[in-house]
Amino acid sequence: MSVLVPQAQDFPTWYQDVIAKAQLAENGPVRGTMVIRPWGYAIWERLQAAIDERIKATGARNAYFPLLIPEAFMRREAEHVEGFSPELAVVTHGGGKQLEEPAVVRPTSETIVNSSFARWISSYRDLPLLINQWANVVRWELRPRLFLRSSEFLWQEGHTAHAAREEAHAYALRILEEVYAGSMVDELAIPVFRGRKTEREKFAGAEISWSCEGVMRDGKALQMGTSHELGQNFARAFGIRYSDRDGQLRHVWQTSWGVSTRLLGAMIMVHGDDHGLRVPPRLAPVQVVVVVARAGEGVIEAAAAIVDELERAGVRVELDDHVEVSLGRRLVDHELRGVPIRVELGPRDVAGDQAVIARRARTEKQTVPMRALVEIPQMLVDDQHELLAQAISLRDQRTGTARSIDEAREMAADGVARLRWRDCGVDGEDRLAKAGVSVRCLVREDGEPVDDPDADGVDALVARAY
Amino acid sequence: MSVLVPQAQDFPTWYQDVIAKAQLAENGPVRGTMVIRPWGYAIWERLQAAIDERIKATGARNAYFPLLIPEAFMRREAEHVEGFSPELAVVTHGGGKQLEEPAVVRPTSETIVNSSFARWISSYRDLPLLINQWANVVRWELRPRLFLRSSEFLWQEGHTAHAAREEAHAYALRILEEVYAGSMVDELAIPVFRGRKTEREKFAGAEISWSCEGVMRDGKALQMGTSHELGQNFARAFGIRYSDRDGQLRHVWQTSWGVSTRLLGAMIMVHGDDHGLRVPPRLAPVQVVVVVARAGEGVIEAAAAIVDELERAGVRVELDDHVEVSLGRRLVDHELRGVPIRVELGPRDVAGDQAVIARRARTEKQTVPMRALVEIPQMLVDDQHELLAQAISLRDQRTGTARSIDEAREMAADGVARLRWRDCGVDGEDRLAKAGVSVRCLVREDGEPVDDPDADGVDALVARAY
Repeated sequence: MSVLVPQAQDFPTWYQDVIAKAQLAENGPVRGTMVIRPWGYAIWERLQAAIDERIKATGARNAYFPLLIPEAFMRREAEHVEGFSPELAVVTHGGGKQLEEPAVVRPTSETIVNSSFARWISSYRDLPLLINQWANVVRWELRPRLFLRSSEFLWQEGHTAHAAREEAHAYALRILEEVYAGSMVDELAIPVFRGRKTEREKFAGAEISWSCEGVMRDGKALQMGTSHELGQNFARAFGIRYSDRDGQLRHVWQTSWGVSTRLLGAMIMVHGDDHGLRVPPRLAPVQVVVVVARAGEGVIEAAAAIVDELERAGVRVELDDHVEVSLGRRLVDHELRGVPIRVELGPRDVAGDQAVIARRARTEKQTVPMRALVEIPQMLVDDQHELLAQAISLRDQRTGTARSIDEAREMAADGVARLRWRDCGVDGEDRLAKAGVSVRCLVREDGEPVDDPDADGVDALVARAY
Repeated sequence: MSVLVPQAQDFPTWYQDVIAKAQLAENGPVRGTMVIRPWGYAIWERLQAAIDERIKATGARNAYFPLLIPEAFMRREAEHVEGFSPELAVVTHGGGKQLEEPAVVRPTSETIVNSSFARWISSYRDLPLLINQWANVVRWELRPRLFLRSSEFLWQEGHTAHAAREEAHAYALRILEEVYAGSMVDELAIPVFRGRKTEREKFAGAEISWSCEGVMRDGKALQMGTSHELGQNFARAFGIRYSDRDGQLRHVWQTSWGVSTRLLGAMIMVHGDDHGLRVPPRLAPVQVVVVVARAGEGVIEAAAAIVDELERAGVRVELDDHVEVSLGRRLVDHELRGVPIRVELGPRDVAGDQAVIARRARTEKQTVPMRALVEIPQMLVDDQHELLAQAISLRDQRTGTARSIDEAREMAADGVARLRWRDCGVDGEDRLAKAGVSVRCLVREDGEPVDDPDADGVDALVARAY
């Protein structure tokens, strides 16, 4: 008997269910907020560390900007305020008094970061200025869903200033490719489309938005990360200018980019199955659980020895010797949590110098000689690749080519349709929107970034989306 | 000429000055908020990582709870709401509408964490529950000061639940000693008094508060971390009960504990001098800067070779080859930032196979043979200890014994007075408070934790405080 509603029966309920039963997260008391429980947070910490390393490798440095932003700041950039107004949380009282000017809880930090950039930048020598922050942001959500749309979420947001448009362009794409797509593929084991957002879908205040889009098990798309070219919009709004080598004052060119705890939603919806989560080994807080099936002659000792040996091999390993709890229930829990490898050990195994290995990325469960356990570190590497291979195959099954808007809309019922952007266009996009379907991004046949949406060989990726 | 107001002349102005000129932080636009700049944040990141490792070593796991707390939650524990009411920031509008129930921006998370604990705990098997979170909190400050009192600050807050009072007691003290005092001494190179807060000074909602107190260069004390025994106050307010081995329902016993970005204020005020910061080598984002004094035959190459060699030795090293900027200005900047070791190199040095070494923890500047640079990793270890030794000596100079309340008050003008708690008492504490002097904590002569404040051999540490 499955402890979860099967995915095929009701995917949204399965999603809620697995989050609750794997103890990943739960709803907070203020509508739309989220408590990230230790198991969920430990996965996030590992992903965060990997992304942070990649961000720093591009030359960016971390900093921290205030949570509270004067309301007037938000109003300085016209599209930006329009985009965010409906989602703002507003602090009107502080220290027991009504505030002279209300402060908004940051929905994103372009405005407050750029008010600092205006002070920090004066010469071409100060450029490029590459800043990242890890922070919480608040965007009031009408239809909240854990990890995917929560009123508060955790993310990183990068903000950069450059001397030239081409530099900002190259940096925005470098983040998209090396930092975002790179960590999605290598850490989360999720293949992603990289593309350009349409005018309708782009970030409020950006000139061009780029995104990484993943395909979930139910065929819906999920925007997993975005990187924006802001042009000089905020530079003008906040007066960020530098004197070039000839002493001329010029506005900077900017980018901003972010990924969030939403990535955990992607991990759940791409790798999870009817038995629970499947956490990619590189992100798993516990990679191997050694389970004492039943107590008996030398079993605890043998299990402890395996734990020791795996720890010495650099594996994150946990001992489950809670024999007072039924074995069945414990195995279900480890499957729910998505621990990549389980080693089960009972008196008969110890007597026979063998153990049972169950790998979450595969279906078989094998009895192996004890000495085969030395291969576990390699199995973890292999299973990371196995999850990626399965996710690629899933994406490929769910992605097709459509020749008309109607066909694209039909395919979007359970997958992603590639449709010539010329055969779709802004009008087609409007029609799709009425059916709850959107153009996730524009991609070129040759895989290069889309420079001109109206050029030959540009496809729209059409899908329902989270 | 010094670039900073000398400490002896005006310590508060020196403090503001060094924060600005070392580019550690600046004020945010909403009163009392703070922008932590990359240099300051990189120091915080290293300190945070060290503290996080120690927290995890006690068995606690990280999680994340919402920023926004229903106002009603704050009211459930009487002393707690009274303590925090004057400092709350209140969100009254969200998503363009007035909220049915206002939400407060967390000033601390006891209430919201415990609303989860009430769901997570049901049996003695769920205990102890040891949770930590890294987060921002908001407490409206009337007299904000960067790092010391900011309306928003970054911190970690631990929250635990135990089956017995003695366990909670032992855990609160373990955090105080192993995590807090340990990282203050080993990472920040700051000696601290560990003691018990008086009833007047304890945390709102706690039964007993413990703290680590440091002595700053101006003789004022700084509370650097606190660990609280909450008794069953929150357990009763939020209904956190467990069934014991006999099936009886009992309320849990709890602790909470926190350290914040205030620790950077301590680092500045304990180690900083008239030339700028002195960052302890273990926390320095850049431990060694190799400065090309003047370009010339083979200088850049020699400098790059030193950088390579130090990197291979695991040293965090930076090359300063900005010869277009005057050497004097660059040296001043490195001193201001508090980079522990500077290696200077000009054409004459390279010709003579030598280099100049300046160690920020010491005053001398030495010309040494190039081969002596292999000792730099050891110098960094030594200088970490040197800063601690200097801080201990500073604390000892600033700490004396007083025999009366009047004498203690006088000593508190520029230091810390030890006064028998029996000779002070609650009335004495009130008198001192009127003079702006407080009892920082109570300590026992034998160094053991204060069990009974009224027992023999208990001293009050009397000081002015930040």
